[in-house]
Amino acid sequence: MDVTKISERLRTIVNYVAGQDIKLTVDPGLVGANAKYLGRVSSLLPESPLDQAFANQWIHSISSTTPFLSTKEGIAAFSETCEKLLAKTKSYAVGTSLTIVDLLVTAIGIEADLFKYPPTQQKKLAKYLNTLRADSTLKLIIPAAEAQTGQGRKQFIIPNGTGGRTRVDYILSNSDLVGQIVTVKGWARTVRIQGNGSFAFVEVNDGSTVKGIQVIVNNAFPDFSNLKGTGISVSCKGLLVESPGGEQSVEMQVQDPSQHEFKIIGDCDQTAFPISKKNHTPEFLRENAHLRTRTNLIGAIARIRNALAFATHMFFNSRGFLYVHTPLITASDCEGAGELFQVSTILKSKVADIKQKDGMVDYSQDFFGKPAFLTCSGQLNVEAYCSALSDVYTFGPTFRAENSHTTRHLSEFWMIEPEMAWAQLEDNMECAESYLKFCLQYAIDNCYADLEFFDKFVEKGLIDRLRNVLEKPFARISYTEAVDIIHKCGKQFKIMPQWGDDLNSEHERYIAEEVIKGPVIVFNYPKVLKAFYMKVNDDDATVQAMDILVPKIGEVIGGSVREDRLERLDQMIQFKNLDKESYWWYRDFRKYGSVPHAGFGLGFERLVMMVTGVENIRDVIPFPRWPGHAEF
Amino acid sequence: MDVTKISERLRTIVNYVAGQDIKLTVDPGLVGANAKYLGRVSSLLPESPLDQAFANQWIHSISSTTPFLSTKEGIAAFSETCEKLLAKTKSYAVGTSLTIVDLLVTAIGIEADLFKYPPTQQKKLAKYLNTLRADSTLKLIIPAAEAQTGQGRKQFIIPNGTGGRTRVDYILSNSDLVGQIVTVKGWARTVRIQGNGSFAFVEVNDGSTVKGIQVIVNNAFPDFSNLKGTGISVSCKGLLVESPGGEQSVEMQVQDPSQHEFKIIGDCDQTAFPISKKNHTPEFLRENAHLRTRTNLIGAIARIRNALAFATHMFFNSRGFLYVHTPLITASDCEGAGELFQVSTILKSKVADIKQKDGMVDYSQDFFGKPAFLTCSGQLNVEAYCSALSDVYTFGPTFRAENSHTTRHLSEFWMIEPEMAWAQLEDNMECAESYLKFCLQYAIDNCYADLEFFDKFVEKGLIDRLRNVLEKPFARISYTEAVDIIHKCGKQFKIMPQWGDDLNSEHERYIAEEVIKGPVIVFNYPKVLKAFYMKVNDDDATVQAMDILVPKIGEVIGGSVREDRLERLDQMIQFKNLDKESYWWYRDFRKYGSVPHAGFGLGFERLVMMVTGVENIRDVIPFPRWPGHAEF
Repeated sequence: MDVTKISERLRTIVNYVAGQDIKLTVDPGLVGANAKYLGRVSSLLPESPLDQAFANQWIHSISSTTPFLSTKEGIAAFSETCEKLLAKTKSYAVGTSLTIVDLLVTAIGIEADLFKYPPTQQKKLAKYLNTLRADSTLKLIIPAAEAQTGQGRKQFIIPNGTGGRTRVDYILSNSDLVGQIVTVKGWARTVRIQGNGSFAFVEVNDGSTVKGIQVIVNNAFPDFSNLKGTGISVSCKGLLVESPGGEQSVEMQVQDPSQHEFKIIGDCDQTAFPISKKNHTPEFLRENAHLRTRTNLIGAIARIRNALAFATHMFFNSRGFLYVHTPLITASDCEGAGELFQVSTILKSKVADIKQKDGMVDYSQDFFGKPAFLTCSGQLNVEAYCSALSDVYTFGPTFRAENSHTTRHLSEFWMIEPEMAWAQLEDNMECAESYLKFCLQYAIDNCYADLEFFDKFVEKGLIDRLRNVLEKPFARISYTEAVDIIHKCGKQFKIMPQWGDDLNSEHERYIAEEVIKGPVIVFNYPKVLKAFYMKVNDDDATVQAMDILVPKIGEVIGGSVREDRLERLDQMIQFKNLDKESYWWYRDFRKYGSVPHAGFGLGFERLVMMVTGVENIRDVIPFPRWPGHAEF
Repeated sequence: MDVTKISERLRTIVNYVAGQDIKLTVDPGLVGANAKYLGRVSSLLPESPLDQAFANQWIHSISSTTPFLSTKEGIAAFSETCEKLLAKTKSYAVGTSLTIVDLLVTAIGIEADLFKYPPTQQKKLAKYLNTLRADSTLKLIIPAAEAQTGQGRKQFIIPNGTGGRTRVDYILSNSDLVGQIVTVKGWARTVRIQGNGSFAFVEVNDGSTVKGIQVIVNNAFPDFSNLKGTGISVSCKGLLVESPGGEQSVEMQVQDPSQHEFKIIGDCDQTAFPISKKNHTPEFLRENAHLRTRTNLIGAIARIRNALAFATHMFFNSRGFLYVHTPLITASDCEGAGELFQVSTILKSKVADIKQKDGMVDYSQDFFGKPAFLTCSGQLNVEAYCSALSDVYTFGPTFRAENSHTTRHLSEFWMIEPEMAWAQLEDNMECAESYLKFCLQYAIDNCYADLEFFDKFVEKGLIDRLRNVLEKPFARISYTEAVDIIHKCGKQFKIMPQWGDDLNSEHERYIAEEVIKGPVIVFNYPKVLKAFYMKVNDDDATVQAMDILVPKIGEVIGGSVREDRLERLDQMIQFKNLDKESYWWYRDFRKYGSVPHAGFGLGFERLVMMVTGVENIRDVIPFPRWPGHAEF
């Protein structure tokens, strides 16, 4: 261990804490002397003479171990010294607030990686390091310093691309690469031969951004003569220059064979390539779902989808929710829905080969020993985790075997279902609204170029619509108020809903788009309309449900407080004509340490549609499944 | 817009860039005058007299718009002014490096949220803002300042808990809460009545950490008399104090009914509660998978699982990989495996009700119009995204209908499959090794208390084993070398593998544990052993495969370079006796702009086992599925 590093680290920390710019005047090899000097100049020594004596003792004892900190034994000596000096009931080393001693331990802790690998044997020291890390003054500096030391996670990150290339999005956002030679690899989106065949503009896209990079290659390269058109894969090494054109900020010049390179890696037969044309119908692209990835539209959707998925995990993790993988296959037909896919190994080509008994399929011979299905929701399962770990969420595929051919339904789609112990309806609303806004903000922060693409080609005014959602708090009205509004507004609807009827999409859109002019949370729905697990209000007519309706999209989130009273739950199971016995395990959560809790569900594809403006759900999922369609 | 904020913001930025501590001496209401003053004092004015004149022009023009920046019109005026002043081919406003003008635009951009919502119409300005954000001097200050303005993502984050409670892990890591009154809600893990019934120790766990918090409640609260035992849910409001005991750092005193609260929310019948005892067998807990979440073991696994899933997304996102949701249901039986689950809506209770034609099941009547299955890998599908978006990964459930009852196999499990365009075998190895290490480091950084729990109760020395994996580069040996080592070592194995035979777990563990004493990557396997899509080496005998073997765990990762040459791929399809036609879409990637690429697969549950030391895979997934078992 180079002890000068500890002195230097201590100086940085002291200056940060004291807001000063103290230079080291003592030999940096003398850690103890520097600590005393820095403490004095910055007034970070304790005030009382007794505490000053303790501080001196600390500084002497631990600074004597610093030269040995690169060995295990040195770290053990340091740890034991601290352990002995630490008082059990104190937060800081000396006195009741941060002193130079704490900063010295922090400096050593950073340099010796102790915050990352706290000693397991020294319980007081481990607790003390925890206190330092969480201290409001130090909690920013410790992780930042750890990142600098290069020992942490940072070393595993390659921001600019793998496989010997530099990512196009990295090039476009790092203006200091201008004037340098870089290598770009990707697919040619357009090829324009110019100047009587002396050079060509090749737009190279590597999927990292909607805009490719323009490569200007001349005919000095052998592969130039094979440049036929779109779809080929190329590797280009050349000079990055500021682009004189308005469309892009930089372009690449591949002109000098002695320094630059131009290679066609994979050819593409223009006459056979199904998507060589510029524009294709969405239907055609769906039939070629394995190649539609090469279009700007599907590329931009893929980036937004990735960003929204990551934002989902960031949001819930930052709130302390645990991600739970609920099962896909289940023999527990809990929601009582008939519209489930069956999962089996019992089916054969010949009917006679199917295991049977008295003309009935013999499910005891099936893989799970009984009929099994693909889940349509992870909620009931995730409540098992909510009933022990408090805040949890699922994010996984769910299935509907409905014979639905609309632009808003899929047979297989991804769903996010958070569940919060102790939450009331208001907590549920707050969480859902914050989650949606977090996702939108994340997309704006990280995928602006893609959003501009959608704003230009898919939905004019998209970005303004997203900002509108972000800017205002969501309105909140009860179902009863919603029905009232519909009755009193004087507008003609195809169906005029009576209290107790479902609101259909013309009502939902009218309320969100014309009355509220923004997102609205409708709550307290009639219990006849909603699922058995929703908590009944005292009026015994409504349940604590909530739906979030968004202009142009309609419902994006549905949720509720869950019934946590066993007796009431059983009444609802009966009211809905369900079989109490098949809910035995779900009812157990109400028997043993029941807690109030709430949650919601969001169809991930609906969110992607909301953020992109894309109107057919089959285009926002990589390989869509609907009746008759399970290719690829 | 309060223009003094812009002056103040500019001062902060100038001091950051110049490393000085300049105070404002000019009236902060005069933005232009301040900009000139700060530029002069910090030497951030351009050098040439002509550029100085340009800088003055900039400062005059844009500072005149600043008082109106809170309106849309004001922002438009500012944007148009910038757009006019900006030269197309320059990176910075004036000259070729950062000047006070750029910092003034930065200050305004931060205060007026222009970095977050760049103007869409002003192309030059949007590009210029992008340059500023990416400038090596400013790229830290802009996001940090945005976070301060409170407009960004931060506002959606609640770090300390929802539902009117403070999370236990937040309490344990924030020593400044000591002395305050907080509310904790959770489940009682232990209840000890003391002092002749005058007070009780209640260990309350809310799932946020393996260690609960000790609550000391006295008999002044009505619910005290109902305190029976484990499993009840409680809400406790009380005073946080330093704990005199060694086990925990703080504890909660609930003693004064006028200020504190103690409520039993959900009772728990001790005689009926299946897991009221302290220790249960894993088998018993699996049969009660809906309640085993209340144990320390399953709670700790849930937190590690969440951390590893989040680390996975962080790792791949930070490298620019896009998360792709590949389909679960597929009618394309591509790997030729017989061990698939069939997905159907054609099955009925009575065999006679199954749609049929001439004694054969009539799959044209099934949901997808043909037999459909649950996928056993997303790799072939994700290659469609790799062939357009370069670096991608899947993270989703996969299925095996094998009649396997081992402790290492499940019928339903989660898999991570990254795929990288342009990657060679070395890139693949680097990515896999970095990914594993990133995950381990993340678990150590974020779940240390849980790892200590596993180290103590599940696998002694676990943390040392994880550190050992982190510390050294993984060894790399070829399959041929591995076989040589086994032959020459003199050790007796049950089976002595000849070149071309599979290495089984005794060989793998011998190499990792006794020869290498750490993780090892074995590469270049015989082509007879591996899948059809792996790239054949020039020797025509081996393929560019790689497996990562880890001590005590065995294989955790398997991957390869993919065959990108159509002719060679077709040869392998024939060599493996597969049906070329059913791979029509997979072969298309090689027809149109083929690129070299590589990837690997990791069973997520294997990773959780590796990090926790838990030896039965059924315990590291929330609701395990294996033959005969699909309850809940």
